[in-house]
Amino acid sequence: MIAPVQTLSPTNAPLKTNAQRLNETLQYSCQWGATSDGGMNRLSGNDDDKKVRDWFADETAKCGCTLTVDTMGNMFAVRPGQNNDMAPIALGSHLDTQPTGGKYDGILGVLSAMEVLRVIHENNVTTYAPLAIVNWTNEEGARFPPAMLGSGVWAGEFTTDYGHNRTSLDGTTMKQELERIGYLGTTPCSFEANPLSAHFEVHIEQGPILDAAEKPVGIVKGAQSIRWYRLKVDGREAHTGSTPMDRRNDALLAAAKMIVQVNKVVTTGPLFTRGARGTIAVIESGPQSINTIAGEVKMSLDIRSPFDDDVEEIERLCAQGFEAINREHGTLFQMDCFWKSPATNFHPQMVDCVRESARDVDCTHEIISGAGHDR
Amino acid sequence: MIAPVQTLSPTNAPLKTNAQRLNETLQYSCQWGATSDGGMNRLSGNDDDKKVRDWFADETAKCGCTLTVDTMGNMFAVRPGQNNDMAPIALGSHLDTQPTGGKYDGILGVLSAMEVLRVIHENNVTTYAPLAIVNWTNEEGARFPPAMLGSGVWAGEFTTDYGHNRTSLDGTTMKQELERIGYLGTTPCSFEANPLSAHFEVHIEQGPILDAAEKPVGIVKGAQSIRWYRLKVDGREAHTGSTPMDRRNDALLAAAKMIVQVNKVVTTGPLFTRGARGTIAVIESGPQSINTIAGEVKMSLDIRSPFDDDVEEIERLCAQGFEAINREHGTLFQMDCFWKSPATNFHPQMVDCVRESARDVDCTHEIISGAGHDR
Repeated sequence: MIAPVQTLSPTNAPLKTNAQRLNETLQYSCQWGATSDGGMNRLSGNDDDKKVRDWFADETAKCGCTLTVDTMGNMFAVRPGQNNDMAPIALGSHLDTQPTGGKYDGILGVLSAMEVLRVIHENNVTTYAPLAIVNWTNEEGARFPPAMLGSGVWAGEFTTDYGHNRTSLDGTTMKQELERIGYLGTTPCSFEANPLSAHFEVHIEQGPILDAAEKPVGIVKGAQSIRWYRLKVDGREAHTGSTPMDRRNDALLAAAKMIVQVNKVVTTGPLFTRGARGTIAVIESGPQSINTIAGEVKMSLDIRSPFDDDVEEIERLCAQGFEAINREHGTLFQMDCFWKSPATNFHPQMVDCVRESARDVDCTHEIISGAGHDR
Repeated sequence: MIAPVQTLSPTNAPLKTNAQRLNETLQYSCQWGATSDGGMNRLSGNDDDKKVRDWFADETAKCGCTLTVDTMGNMFAVRPGQNNDMAPIALGSHLDTQPTGGKYDGILGVLSAMEVLRVIHENNVTTYAPLAIVNWTNEEGARFPPAMLGSGVWAGEFTTDYGHNRTSLDGTTMKQELERIGYLGTTPCSFEANPLSAHFEVHIEQGPILDAAEKPVGIVKGAQSIRWYRLKVDGREAHTGSTPMDRRNDALLAAAKMIVQVNKVVTTGPLFTRGARGTIAVIESGPQSINTIAGEVKMSLDIRSPFDDDVEEIERLCAQGFEAINREHGTLFQMDCFWKSPATNFHPQMVDCVRESARDVDCTHEIISGAGHDR
């Protein structure tokens, strides 16, 4: 996270962003996609997305930016610097939201970048490197799963073809919608063809740590190591009334003990102290009849830690516990890891920049991001 | 349960049912509603139900029975006895099945009654009281919930209006279907207007007790005390990555501990020894997102025991445990009992009849029914 940006104007006076203008501009931009309960519903590629994109293009142009739109619709509003052979230093996030999203997730990242741009422009600062204000396409992935699609293609995680062919529930593809709203650009979507020197993002905290510590901002040093699993427990359906307790293979009872086991692993000893997390949040049990013992349970498991080794250890201890529980109940379990995201350490020089900025608002709280694309 | 019936013919020779004929007749009757996997799908009031009812009427008429159909479509095929001012002694069960039912649940009860009727008729026995072979309507309740509808109206648990207005998913009422298939009778559906002296039912075991003991039949002395509850746990949705383990109100974790608690209560000490059962088999958790801690969980709880006092104690111990668990996790729970069925002790004289019969096949195994309408 970056605190209100302080840099030097041509007269060497410290520059400050204007919090009130930032908030007013953010609220203004939320007219497109606002819901009646004060939230946002601005799915990637819809008409509101087009409107906010058009507005973004206009506003950044007023501050001397030239817009580049790549083949995934990612928008790079670039303001020239002193050394225009350098790749721009980027600030940004995403303007799309979940269907029941808020006004700050993503939107704050783009709008605070725009506020920085305005202050720099008003003060006639020419930055060392060019400055890019970035709006990434379909970062939420709510309409076109998966999440982080535009940035993922740019980073080489997905091919452009893959990105183009993501399909919404009504059968429309990402590419069709980008074309329809006029944001299917021609610049290749690639960190090699269209590089950035660095990328900073302001993001609201989605956990309670800063809030509890009463800190306005935190310095994010990296992102957690994350693994996601599908779990399946197979037992035996039987009548709840006529089947004695010691003759059961109750898949839901075994599953319940597995949920407790995960919690025990991550709340014990050094794993807990070092910030481990383990959660089962999705559960589906069959046949869902009040008087039939569950024969099958499916669950998801989400484990995290700032450290890859700890995630490995959590996985091992969970699996070991699951083994014992399923042996006790005569049930069978499967544990299938379907997503791994190793721990990411942000570049020390960039973290130093943020640290320096944050000091100005008397904040030295350093944290590891607990989320994926949210910081 | 009744073992192969032994009674005396006019020549005082012991009578025996014909197991092979019973099985052949049962298989024959399962042509209506048979599924490709060897099971049955004969929902109450459908065309197959009409066909098997017509056949039942014909077959019982061949054995000297007069058919009474009541206003709920319950069929009483009555063969006169020596004392026709007495209410008949009934044998029977139900010919309807679950959509994925088997050939023996209910059907065996009606068909074995029919076999008894055939043997008595072939041997020219005139019973002391009239004999009624009964087919109860919609005992499963699969198409027109709740279960035990025909017998429930007859027993005065429900009004006839209530029974008539039960509605299937496609909007058809029970009464409309009975009318359509020609089984909306005129005899009042009531144990007072149309009484029985006694009712015996053969039912397959739906638990593993007799099977494990390798006993062909058991003598059912009564039915368990049963209570059903809706449980609800309210926690707080939060991000699985950014919310520390000690700042959570995880509704699914609390629910998992509640499932384990129920199991602990009924598998401990004298409650277990006296045959307690406790099961959570239905669970629904929201918002079912892998990276959002569950904010709400709904479950069902089924507790049983041969003794009403034990059910009371199980409820108390579960609630006490639930309190502690939810206090620990800062979650809230609700526990709502929506069905109570006290323990039923069958009439000692009737149990003696069954005991006497069972002795003939060298069986003295006495059990308490663990199911509701299933014995």
